Amino acid sequence: MPAGTQDRYTIGLDFGTLSARAVVVRVGDGTVVAEAVHDFAHGVMDRTLDAGDGHTLPPDFALEVPADYIEAIERSVHDAMQASGVDPEAVIGLGVDATSSTVVVTDAQGTPLCERPEFANNPHAYIKLWKHHGGQSQAERIVELARQREESWLGRYGGTLSSEMLLPKILETFEEAPEVYAATEEVLDVLDWLTWKLTGRLTYAAGDSGYKRMYQDGSYPSRDFLEALAPGFGGVFEEKMSHEVLPLGARVGGLDAEFARAFGLPEGIAVASGNIDAHVHAASVDAVRPGQLTGILGTSVCWVLPSARYHDVPGTFGVVDGGIADGSWGFECGQSAVGDCFAWFIENCVPASYIAEAEERGLTVFGLLAEKAAQQEIGEHGLVALDWWNGNRSILVDGNLTGLMVGQTLATTPEDQYRAIQEACCFGARVIIENFEEHGVPVDEIRVAGGLLKDSFLMQMYADITRRPLSTATVVQAGAQGSAIFAAVAAGAYPDLPSAAASMGGVVENAYVPREEASRQYDRLYEQYRHLYELFGREDPTMHALKEIRRDAMARRALRPGAR
Amino acid sequence: MPAGTQDRYTIGLDFGTLSARAVVVRVGDGTVVAEAVHDFAHGVMDRTLDAGDGHTLPPDFALEVPADYIEAIERSVHDAMQASGVDPEAVIGLGVDATSSTVVVTDAQGTPLCERPEFANNPHAYIKLWKHHGGQSQAERIVELARQREESWLGRYGGTLSSEMLLPKILETFEEAPEVYAATEEVLDVLDWLTWKLTGRLTYAAGDSGYKRMYQDGSYPSRDFLEALAPGFGGVFEEKMSHEVLPLGARVGGLDAEFARAFGLPEGIAVASGNIDAHVHAASVDAVRPGQLTGILGTSVCWVLPSARYHDVPGTFGVVDGGIADGSWGFECGQSAVGDCFAWFIENCVPASYIAEAEERGLTVFGLLAEKAAQQEIGEHGLVALDWWNGNRSILVDGNLTGLMVGQTLATTPEDQYRAIQEACCFGARVIIENFEEHGVPVDEIRVAGGLLKDSFLMQMYADITRRPLSTATVVQAGAQGSAIFAAVAAGAYPDLPSAAASMGGVVENAYVPREEASRQYDRLYEQYRHLYELFGREDPTMHALKEIRRDAMARRALRPGAR
Repeated sequence: MPAGTQDRYTIGLDFGTLSARAVVVRVGDGTVVAEAVHDFAHGVMDRTLDAGDGHTLPPDFALEVPADYIEAIERSVHDAMQASGVDPEAVIGLGVDATSSTVVVTDAQGTPLCERPEFANNPHAYIKLWKHHGGQSQAERIVELARQREESWLGRYGGTLSSEMLLPKILETFEEAPEVYAATEEVLDVLDWLTWKLTGRLTYAAGDSGYKRMYQDGSYPSRDFLEALAPGFGGVFEEKMSHEVLPLGARVGGLDAEFARAFGLPEGIAVASGNIDAHVHAASVDAVRPGQLTGILGTSVCWVLPSARYHDVPGTFGVVDGGIADGSWGFECGQSAVGDCFAWFIENCVPASYIAEAEERGLTVFGLLAEKAAQQEIGEHGLVALDWWNGNRSILVDGNLTGLMVGQTLATTPEDQYRAIQEACCFGARVIIENFEEHGVPVDEIRVAGGLLKDSFLMQMYADITRRPLSTATVVQAGAQGSAIFAAVAAGAYPDLPSAAASMGGVVENAYVPREEASRQYDRLYEQYRHLYELFGREDPTMHALKEIRRDAMARRALRPGAR
Repeated sequence: MPAGTQDRYTIGLDFGTLSARAVVVRVGDGTVVAEAVHDFAHGVMDRTLDAGDGHTLPPDFALEVPADYIEAIERSVHDAMQASGVDPEAVIGLGVDATSSTVVVTDAQGTPLCERPEFANNPHAYIKLWKHHGGQSQAERIVELARQREESWLGRYGGTLSSEMLLPKILETFEEAPEVYAATEEVLDVLDWLTWKLTGRLTYAAGDSGYKRMYQDGSYPSRDFLEALAPGFGGVFEEKMSHEVLPLGARVGGLDAEFARAFGLPEGIAVASGNIDAHVHAASVDAVRPGQLTGILGTSVCWVLPSARYHDVPGTFGVVDGGIADGSWGFECGQSAVGDCFAWFIENCVPASYIAEAEERGLTVFGLLAEKAAQQEIGEHGLVALDWWNGNRSILVDGNLTGLMVGQTLATTPEDQYRAIQEACCFGARVIIENFEEHGVPVDEIRVAGGLLKDSFLMQMYADITRRPLSTATVVQAGAQGSAIFAAVAAGAYPDLPSAAASMGGVVENAYVPREEASRQYDRLYEQYRHLYELFGREDPTMHALKEIRRDAMARRALRPGAR
């Protein structure tokens, strides 16, 4: 333990979709001594502009109110400090992570445009949340043009772009609300806006800049490209995003006096450069060295992997130099729906008799299904599924793919189908891992964090199917703790991220170990999965045809008398 | 109406798996004036030999007690006559249908061997019900040898044989209970045993003989073949099944005096040759002429179609000269699980909230799902399923095929999946119809009977998807009524089956008419279904591989400590 860190603390701030969480963490060993959560006052505005005149929003909109973030940061840090009993003078730094591609537009002083009376009712002047999909057509045009022009950066994003990226969102503003665009002096992902507010210094975080703002190898998409995309848009990066990009763990500046007062913390303590909420888990599970794969297992799953060398890995969702930890290439892959698939199943596919049994026996429905599934031999259900209920992010990068299940008989039970979906999610992870290794990026070990860790049956399944041990996070608040680790680096308590993560982060080593016999049996199912994966993912047109049929049906529905 | 039939009546007797139903029908117009149902006292013995010493049966056994049939026939006919108020002297005939491949072994007088004290505890001396699967390995050997020897009759059964056929059942007896086989003087399907008992004359029914006893073009599988199958078995047909095969609608004889007394009916009235319970519906819906396809829509679905000419139609389940109506070729196709699929879904896949909503609104769960599904545009669910939850009987003849669903998203609802399964069953029917037509057997119209008729949403779907009008049965007891029609022919009230069916049977003509716009939209889904049908039915090995994985898993389970 570095000298003098025993009794020092940092604050980790984790901004989710609906709330902010603050934790107070001991710098010496990473212990989370207190936490506090504060909800955003307006939540997500996806139907009406409640913070403005309440008018109805288009269907794909998802907006938030910047002031809610400021209120949440003040309240949660204040409350966590109160709960901790820690001497404020012992706090040496603060780190922030947030949902990424959550975009805010401001004037030169950092005041969000929605706070100006003339824009109070303009949706484009509010925060566009990560899941705002209003820029779908813009995203498609960006991809089309980039393919035509063979823009080299497109490969870094798996050959396509989600409408959730920053560029489609700001192009949407340029085209749909030119008056807001004209008044915009700074375009920021919210995590950079927060560190700007906290310190008075505007910089960009390296990881987020690479993954979400398309900053690659020191530059952005060219003026030439942007102008071809939309005349007049060519200067968006130069004019509205031209500040310094800081490496992860860098100190943006000292804590602003006003915030210091509100928090009850000393002015001038280190504020670390921001981070993407999923990626920051890598620090918490001490997996910031090349070859250490972190799985953030929740509603969706994010896999991040530092690598000493760059390789072309087809189907990777994003590759950024210094994107996970400074000094290595950060590879990101994703599975668009994992916990979401399980929740869908519980909501839509579990019969009343099971609900009654779970209630009677004091189990959750998840627990009951896991218990029943655990009594089976592997493969006894005779099923295999493709886990594409929300498309396939990696390694096929195709949002139009859908779910599939095969093998049902009149004897097929709910636990059979549930287990098959769980297996499919684990098989999907194995494809990602094998894809890394086949393309020269080694995966030496797997460390996992996230809400799904409480399902020990699923965790054992991950180990058996990937044929690798799983080391598990030791804290529930791994995200916020990760930000506190970056804060400790920025405060100089550790010389670098790896040493900070080693001291403050950690895992239960090899909490789940693959069982050879089980692995061998899962291999047979995986062979079927892999076959269907290639078949429906790359060759067979059925899933796309069904999406098209569905789109046409929805268009007919919209034309019905009385339809909205 | 033929002279003198206005006030005459016939009795139709319909033997199901668990009970016998008798109806009294007016010969002039087919009106069902009364009915009575009587359950079999012992039901199905599939766990223990309750009628004997109660010993535990092997898992694939399904036995019944012959005396239960006699009791049920006496009680149901007696009760139906009582309820009808019809003058017994006005009753001119009686017809019987029963489950087919339900096999009984007797002495030369027709006394079942299980009634002899020495065989009272021998399972093979009881009735082997249609779903008795104890002869599975025998069925496989029969098929294997027939393929090797290129036996021509195999093609009449789609190139394979179910273990439910008569031959595997009696070969099982020959091998497993040689003492029973040796004492057996007559091997009969139960419907022939019943007409024998009722008249004292032993004959065989043409339809059943062709479809289930492998009587084709005037002969059975050869002695040579049978001897190669099992030495000593070569004479089974010559020695134990060597009576006359009567055409459908023929008079077996006059009603026996003792039965006449028990029924309260005149001695000597006509008893018609028996019939298969599904096929007899064709008479009830007046569909006994070439080109009239009858669908018997229930837990499984049976399609029967008379044709003026024989054609090789690959994937047909059975083709018999005079099998549906005398004078034409009777083609039979089947879908192994239709109503069963819907019931499986209701049992296993409907969430508690739907059950509660159905209860609250006084609907059945079937009704609620249909109502929700009916609000959708066709194709809106984005799904397509393969309806093979119990294998595919026609046109792939592969019991190892299984279900499939593709297109699920996080927005997929229970009604979406339910509707996709219903559509798949209708698509499966369309494949059967197109297959007939492609091979020269015309389908001029569709007439349907059975329990699924009460689902009008499904019936409209059948019409839209097949692009043909659907005419529907007018009586619920279409099976028993059909037997009463054959009785009228045997009694000479009509010169032939077509004229009897025309007067006594009938349908609501074109009760459901295809809607061009809906058909056009279903066509797009059908194109996807057809593609997956060929892919998984003939090319892709996934379903078979999963069955094999499942078999191995079940074998491991059987080896567990404490397993049965």
